[in-house]
Amino acid sequence: MASEIRFNAFAMNTPGHLSPGQWTHPRDRSADYNKLRTWTDLAQILEAGLFDGLFVADVVGVYDVYGGGPAAALRHAAQVPINDPMLLVSAMAHVTRHLGFGITSTLTWESPYLLARRYSTLDHLTEGRVGWNIVTGYLDSGARAHGLDRLIAHDTRYGIAEEYMAVVYKLWEGSWEEGAAVRDRAQAIFTDPAKVHAVRHAGPNFRVDAIHLCEPSPQRTPLLYQAGTSDAGRAFAGRHAECVFVSGPSAAVIARRVRDLREAAAAAGRDPAEILIFSLLTLMVGETRAAAEDRHAECLRHASPGGALALMAGWTGLDLSTYGLDEEIRHIENDANRSALENITRADPIRIWTVRDVAERVSIGGIAPVIVGDARQVADAVEDWVDQTGVDGLNLAYAVLPETFEDIARHLVPELQRRGRYKRTYRPGTLRDKLFGRPRLAGWHPAAAHRPGAAPQG
Amino acid sequence: MASEIRFNAFAMNTPGHLSPGQWTHPRDRSADYNKLRTWTDLAQILEAGLFDGLFVADVVGVYDVYGGGPAAALRHAAQVPINDPMLLVSAMAHVTRHLGFGITSTLTWESPYLLARRYSTLDHLTEGRVGWNIVTGYLDSGARAHGLDRLIAHDTRYGIAEEYMAVVYKLWEGSWEEGAAVRDRAQAIFTDPAKVHAVRHAGPNFRVDAIHLCEPSPQRTPLLYQAGTSDAGRAFAGRHAECVFVSGPSAAVIARRVRDLREAAAAAGRDPAEILIFSLLTLMVGETRAAAEDRHAECLRHASPGGALALMAGWTGLDLSTYGLDEEIRHIENDANRSALENITRADPIRIWTVRDVAERVSIGGIAPVIVGDARQVADAVEDWVDQTGVDGLNLAYAVLPETFEDIARHLVPELQRRGRYKRTYRPGTLRDKLFGRPRLAGWHPAAAHRPGAAPQG
Repeated sequence: MASEIRFNAFAMNTPGHLSPGQWTHPRDRSADYNKLRTWTDLAQILEAGLFDGLFVADVVGVYDVYGGGPAAALRHAAQVPINDPMLLVSAMAHVTRHLGFGITSTLTWESPYLLARRYSTLDHLTEGRVGWNIVTGYLDSGARAHGLDRLIAHDTRYGIAEEYMAVVYKLWEGSWEEGAAVRDRAQAIFTDPAKVHAVRHAGPNFRVDAIHLCEPSPQRTPLLYQAGTSDAGRAFAGRHAECVFVSGPSAAVIARRVRDLREAAAAAGRDPAEILIFSLLTLMVGETRAAAEDRHAECLRHASPGGALALMAGWTGLDLSTYGLDEEIRHIENDANRSALENITRADPIRIWTVRDVAERVSIGGIAPVIVGDARQVADAVEDWVDQTGVDGLNLAYAVLPETFEDIARHLVPELQRRGRYKRTYRPGTLRDKLFGRPRLAGWHPAAAHRPGAAPQG
Repeated sequence: MASEIRFNAFAMNTPGHLSPGQWTHPRDRSADYNKLRTWTDLAQILEAGLFDGLFVADVVGVYDVYGGGPAAALRHAAQVPINDPMLLVSAMAHVTRHLGFGITSTLTWESPYLLARRYSTLDHLTEGRVGWNIVTGYLDSGARAHGLDRLIAHDTRYGIAEEYMAVVYKLWEGSWEEGAAVRDRAQAIFTDPAKVHAVRHAGPNFRVDAIHLCEPSPQRTPLLYQAGTSDAGRAFAGRHAECVFVSGPSAAVIARRVRDLREAAAAAGRDPAEILIFSLLTLMVGETRAAAEDRHAECLRHASPGGALALMAGWTGLDLSTYGLDEEIRHIENDANRSALENITRADPIRIWTVRDVAERVSIGGIAPVIVGDARQVADAVEDWVDQTGVDGLNLAYAVLPETFEDIARHLVPELQRRGRYKRTYRPGTLRDKLFGRPRLAGWHPAAAHRPGAAPQG
């Protein structure tokens, strides 16, 4: 039987996210990213469409590579202004019952002790519906906001991240035993002190001697997401991630990534099928093909190639303002930091790409295809994509917020349900229950070694 | 004309807060501090009672002075477990329109760049209803969670806090000019880059070279609260705080504090009447005096003297487990860190206090009086208290959550309205508008020096 396809919505606490310029679209609400109602309405739309989760990306810093400053990013609202993503969650949790919330937090600038408390708090308030996308940062501008001249070297960051994870696992899994918070009213004992243990950690980057401040939440450790595509990032995902986001321009590129990720999971001693992989797509579904194409054409008129180039320059580290708009990509490919550009040109290697082509391509939905059509056409394309790539689900960007998601919920979801490839109801329980059938991390996970009574690890 | 009395509700993301043991009370919901509904219901009750704000206290660390470990605090739920307070706000904002939210954040463990983004985000989402209670921490256990053996010395912490405030003021007030986020759809300009400025700060503790990530929020700088009672804390409040919380056992003690604070404000060049002072009280109001006394007696039966001693030991730094329960306080007064204990004994200096007396006194509502009666009696007492102390309002602790506040809203508020001492509707606008009649910090405030075009300061 063909597998069920999972939908995750992809957004950011900023105008436009991966579709710079659409904030000028008359029906787009992403310029109201700073209004609570934008988010509570979105959460309800997604829950009506049985989306597994809303994933709120984040970046600490501003895209200031293009032109050597933030002017282009500011002018085109290329992920700036950008507000904190975590603070949206409790309002959206209040208006939903099942939708999960995956939040990006950059561990590089956060105390592990307080980050652990934040996620425990959200896991309590959402009754187990929160996930953490673990990132270490990619913009030097974020480092300059924190007293450094540039980011710490990539592989060093992942080394720090390994130790950081050990600290938060000890807090989430090891500090409070099951049943420690007895809430025994008759004996007036809230917590049994014998079941609460100080975490004692002394490593090269972190030192902690303290109990976790929170009683165990439904999932304890939040559902763990990762999106790294470097070698270090993939190895990190292989060890730690339960869900992974990938993005790329073609099914062939994604299929290779999926294979590499499942190999990394197997290398880490895991069942490769147990890592859930979501790939980026933008789906523009209309009641008819013509209606969808009209909407797509409308979006193209509002797209901001300048915003797209500001994003691309930030992702690649390459100042694209120093090239002519009609210059061919193959000249740029001799430069460093070209992987994100290659991501795009690989989709169509025969054609000669110019900077302008890239800008237009990236300006709706980032470096992933946009699929336009009626429900049957898009369902066909989605089934093909999933079956060719081996992904478990889609991470769906929007062109127009929340219209893109409303259209998916209204037109595409019923079609996929008829085909037996989309759930008809939510499963009960936490986000991890819904995705993996258990509320807590599996025993193979490195965090499990920090549980009280676990065999000590070297 | 007698002044209007302002009400602020005082809570914490933990069971019991200042009334340890009441989580065993059959009607108390504070053991459900980790359920969102507890907070959304509370916010709606407070807004129905026209409270200006809900103040959510916080402490990073655990009360582990009593008995040299956290066992007593854990057993009695003396402010542990304790979840993050900020993450409650957006849900409560969603179900209210006017209520303000004052949140304690311990700056010592937070990146100023990200803390500034968090408050800007909340100020956007609440449409200008957020305040920050600036604290530097008081528990060594919080330091041990962050790689230190103990807290940095008190006066050094306040020196760091001064520089920290300069950094966040520059981000909030100086980075984005008014009108920078033009949202010009016709010209496709979201932000005018010429009106956004990098903050360049290089001091002994912090170095920042970055734009603020958020466009100006309704208040820009959140409403600033402070609660310090030391000399350094009072001087800090005199310079920075718009609102101050004080607590003490008697009107005489509070009157002295109020006088000192207004002097500190005057010394900082401010109008002393412009600093709003809220003092801690617990009001148990019943439909009749007998009903109120019954409720008070019921609370006394659920109070936890052990929890109170764990709190007192943490506040004073004095391990009260080394003294007998019937030992007299005057013997303890020879020890260091006695100021919090003196706070209590001063209320009734002739009586000889034992450790047991202190525990009972502190076990409902902390180190402030509990006033019990029908609406007229409590209104009389509140008027007397306010008139004798010169405070602008009350910071109201609960015995039973949310019942204590429901009773105040139902019985006391109408009585004070009849007497012309309580508002009948909210004023429009932001929290700062409601308290001070303006959305932004006044020109005298040190933050104002960091506005674009302000005269440079030495």
